[in-house]
Parts: sequence; C-alpha cells; structure tokens
Amino acid sequence: MNVSTEETDTRRATADVFNSAVAAAAVGAAWEVGALDELEEHGKLDALDFAARHDLHPASTKGMFAALASVRIVERRNNLVLTGANFAEAYRNRSLFHWLTQGSGELFQRMPYVLRNANRVGDYYRRDSAAISFACREINERFFDPAFWQAMDGLDFPFSSVADLGTGSGQRLIQIAKKYPGTRGVGVDIAGPALDMATREVANQGLAGQITFLDGDARALDPRPEFADVELLTCFMMGHDLWPRENCVASLRRIREAFPKVRRFLLGDATRTSGIPDDRLPIFTLGFEVGHDLMGVYLPTIDEWDGVFEEGGWRCVRKHLIDTLTVSVVFELE
Amino acid sequence: MNVSTEETDTRRATADVFNSAVAAAAVGAAWEVGALDELEEHGKLDALDFAARHDLHPASTKGMFAALASVRIVERRNNLVLTGANFAEAYRNRSLFHWLTQGSGELFQRMPYVLRNANRVGDYYRRDSAAISFACREINERFFDPAFWQAMDGLDFPFSSVADLGTGSGQRLIQIAKKYPGTRGVGVDIAGPALDMATREVANQGLAGQITFLDGDARALDPRPEFADVELLTCFMMGHDLWPRENCVASLRRIREAFPKVRRFLLGDATRTSGIPDDRLPIFTLGFEVGHDLMGVYLPTIDEWDGVFEEGGWRCVRKHLIDTLTVSVVFELE
Repeated sequence: MNVSTEETDTRRATADVFNSAVAAAAVGAAWEVGALDELEEHGKLDALDFAARHDLHPASTKGMFAALASVRIVERRNNLVLTGANFAEAYRNRSLFHWLTQGSGELFQRMPYVLRNANRVGDYYRRDSAAISFACREINERFFDPAFWQAMDGLDFPFSSVADLGTGSGQRLIQIAKKYPGTRGVGVDIAGPALDMATREVANQGLAGQITFLDGDARALDPRPEFADVELLTCFMMGHDLWPRENCVASLRRIREAFPKVRRFLLGDATRTSGIPDDRLPIFTLGFEVGHDLMGVYLPTIDEWDGVFEEGGWRCVRKHLIDTLTVSVVFELE
Repeated sequence: MNVSTEETDTRRATADVFNSAVAAAAVGAAWEVGALDELEEHGKLDALDFAARHDLHPASTKGMFAALASVRIVERRNNLVLTGANFAEAYRNRSLFHWLTQGSGELFQRMPYVLRNANRVGDYYRRDSAAISFACREINERFFDPAFWQAMDGLDFPFSSVADLGTGSGQRLIQIAKKYPGTRGVGVDIAGPALDMATREVANQGLAGQITFLDGDARALDPRPEFADVELLTCFMMGHDLWPRENCVASLRRIREAFPKVRRFLLGDATRTSGIPDDRLPIFTLGFEVGHDLMGVYLPTIDEWDGVFEEGGWRCVRKHLIDTLTVSVVFELE
C-alpha cells in the first residue's frame, strides 16, 4: 500500500468513526419515532411524508436518515429512504444503541470529567433512567428471553410464587403470570419511579391482585413475609451490582436466607469479556464495560461468577450462554 | 460473497458503528486529559502510570484507551499504549470529535425529543458552551488560521483598528495585536460569559488598553463610536447565524453601515455541502449539518454565500477554500 492510499484509508476510517457517533444516536432516535419499524415492515419510506405523519421537524428527520445512511443502515435517493446493507443488524441491536446514546449518553459525553479522581464523589455522573428502562425492556426480550424461557420450560418442579430482583418495569413477572396463570409474583427494586410505573402496568393488565412490588436492595435483602413462600427467583441484568466478590458471596447468602423455600434461582446478566482483540469486540461489549468502568462498578467475568456460587450457598445446575450480546449467560442455581 | 460472509461483514460493520460512538467520546476525553499530546510526543505511554500522574481513575483510563483501540487510534499491549494506524488523523481532528461529543453531545443524545415539532419551542436543546468554546479555539487554529493569515498577509492597505464579530474567547484579536503591534481591537459577541473570559485573557496578556469587548449581536449591529475607525473586520465560524438569505442580506448591509471606514471583511465559516455520497462524507460534515438541522439553524452552501454578497453591499475579491474541514472557506470582502 503506498503512502497516499494509506492516508486516504486512515482519513476515511477516522471520518467513519466521527459519522458513526452521529449514526449511533440516530439509530436510537429512529427506533423511538417508529422509523425503524416502518422500514422493517415496508423496506422503504419517504422522509418528508414520514416526518409529516409523525409531526416531526422535516430537516431534522432528513438529518437522522442522512446519519443512518452514512454507515449504510439505510440508503437514500432524494427523500426516498430504503433499508441498507447494515439495516437488519442495526434493527436487531437497536436497543443496544439506545442504551449507549440515549440512556448512557451523558456518562460518555462527560468522560473527561468522570476520569478525574477529584470529581468521583457523590453523584458524579448522570444517566437517563427512563431511557435505560425503555431500552432494557427490549434488551431483555431480544437477548435474554429465549434463554430465560428455555430455563423456565425445563423446570422440574411446580411453583406458585415467584420473586424478581431488580424488577424494573415488572415485565418479567407480568409475562410469568400470563404464562402460568395463578402464579403470585413479588418484584423488588431500588428505583422508586420504576416501581410506580410497574404498579400501574400490572393494574392495567388486571394483575394487581397477583403481583406486588417492594422497594428493596437485592444486595442486602432481609426475610419478609412476602418472600416466605417464594419457590422461584429471577434476577436479570443487575447481577453485576452484587459484586465485587466478597459482597457477592454475602448477597447470595442473604438471598438464600431471605427466600427459605426457593428451589431455583435464574440469574441472567452480561459479563466482562477477556481476551478479545481490541478491534474485534462485538457489539455492546465496549460500551457496557467502559460504561461500568466510568461508573466505578465492578463487572465479573463468567469465570468469576462460576467461582462464587458454592461459597454463596448455591449450586449451578445449568448455564445458558447467549452469544448475541457480548458474553451473556443465564445461570440456573439451586 | 456468500451469505455467511455477508452476515459476518454486516455484524462487524454494525459493531464498529457502536464502538465508534464510544471511541468518539474517548478522543475528546484523551485530548482534555493530555493523553493525545503525550502519545503524539512519545509514541507510547503506560496507561496506569499515566492515570497515576494525572490523578485519573485507573479502570476508566484503561477503558478510554480500550475505546480508542477499538478503532485503531491506539494499540494496546497490556497496559502499554502505542499510537495506532488512525492516530495521526484522530490527533489532527481531535477538536472536531470534542465539538461533537463533549460540546454537542446532549443535542444528539436527545435527538428523539428534538425531532418532535411539539417539543421545538423555547430552549428545547442544550449544548455545553464551555466545551464548545474549548474545541472551537483549536478548530480555529488548525483549520481556519492558515487561510486567515494568508489573507492577512495579502492585505494591500495599512490598518490600525480591527473588529471581530462573534469573537468568543477573543483569541483572534489577541493574535492580531501581537502580530501587528499597536493595532486596536474590538470584539463583539452575544455570549456574556465568553466575553468575561476574553476580557480576563486580554488583561493577562497585557493588552487591556488595546482590546475591548462589547456585548452585541452581529445579526443586528448599529453604528457605535468604537466602530467608527475600524478598517478591518473579521468574523469566523458564525457567518451561518446570519442566515436565512433575507436576514443575511440585511445583516451584511447593517454591518457595512455600522463600520463606515471598513476596507476589508474576512469572513470564514464551514458551509453546507451538496452532492457528496452519504457514505463518503468527510469528517465533521455530518455532525455539523445534522446538528444545525436539529437546532433549526439554516446552513448556506458556498454557492448561496456567493449569491448574497453583492446584494448585501460587498464585493468578494478572493476566496480561500479549506479542504480539511468539510466545505469551509474564508471570503475576502470589500
């Protein structure tokens, strides 16, 4: 490769990095305003017509599609927008882009501030918890649900009472109650606003008598009357909050004591990778790991998880690997 | 290309878009904390040693370098960080990444909100003006200064009084006063906080007697005693704020009347491109254009500029094209 080709290549590569940052935000936006679903269904749309139908600013809407086109998620011919070479993959992973740019955008934007030890006290970073809740609902559905339902289908005991730790919008309990009618559910979360939303949603679904929510911290649970009969425990996308190791062992033990009748614990989470070359990282990994580094949250590897269950009073009977979301896994513990 | 190769390619491409969004924020951060300068000077550094010397959070610092490594701006061997294939290009353009992610990050993050007409009233978006001022200082130096000084060197008349519109941190006036001792300068800006900073900076440089600042809007200037003797006008990176066309014609006329003795007007700005294929956009273009679409600010093309001077009472005598920053230009008007 001669020098001028090399220069052209690195110029193109660096412009692509820049354009990708705009495009990443546009993926989340295009999802929220319904453009990705319309393109998935019809394969095309007219940008100005789409803007008019959704009462969106026309120039900004065209700008959003220009950003998607810069990385071949769509193609444009004047105002006609068609799905591009990377559409299917971006569509599949749209919730991960949203998590990164809409949900965690401010954390990454303020990286220069967050890096400095002197600033890392109190509430030194902010994320948009409503946006994260919006994205995580689909992350759960698209990435964790297949393994979750596989684990549920394989349960070899009857159950009538379930608890969900870090329940967020309460979707998991709602779905369990629908699939297993009559099952009682209790959701635990430290985020009050999420629980209010979850309570309303459960009422809307006519499940208010069956599912209740409690304000509580899964890292330090005490026995409660609501926990006494729980046979099945679930906990998704928050297991890393139990770490570092010493804390995780203690939390796992407390969880066991808080739920004396529990027979199975389905624990699903993304874990820290190791050994992947820097420029071969799959989607989500980098944002998930650097984001937690910035927030000062320890992320265990899958091996570290494997090494903590026994001491925490659990036995891992099955492990469902999820290969579409960094290194993610659903552990079945008993 | 068979199907499985195609799937692998689009998966890699989409992961790269995701990783690039993290990397773009890391470029701005690595600039601010001094890592890019140290790598430029020495070609390498130790991540943990660097963190210790700058009192930065070690895991976050490693995360920042991991993000840069994901797009080959650096290479990592354990904690050793080396310049990568795209380092020189990212280093050259670091202020553009900072403008995008640190300065304008919240605008792009909130794209779903900003798209909706119903939300586009009042202060419907926020940017970090201190960060933008930090980035624009280097954008001016690296991209506009070569053409600016070429225009200055070519001036065929003596001058003793200069005005700078949209002066921001006042750097341009300070540099002119240093290169042409005895020249008086007056800076005009609508951003009060920027003028306070500029006033302090001018005092620090011992130029308080020579350079003064006025709170004013370049779009609607009235004659003032401070403007009466000004022979040279400069205005950089804000010309698009004079548009749309009708407003621009009126502003250009008012500027001419407000500065009765002006002989030359150096007007430098980035302009809206047209006709570049969506996936070939050079660095900055997409962020600059979509950002202004989101903010509802009209961006003229270079042809639109060419078509407005005569009506605005000016004659363009020379045009310096800047090919390293989207389509940018310094017009020499008289």
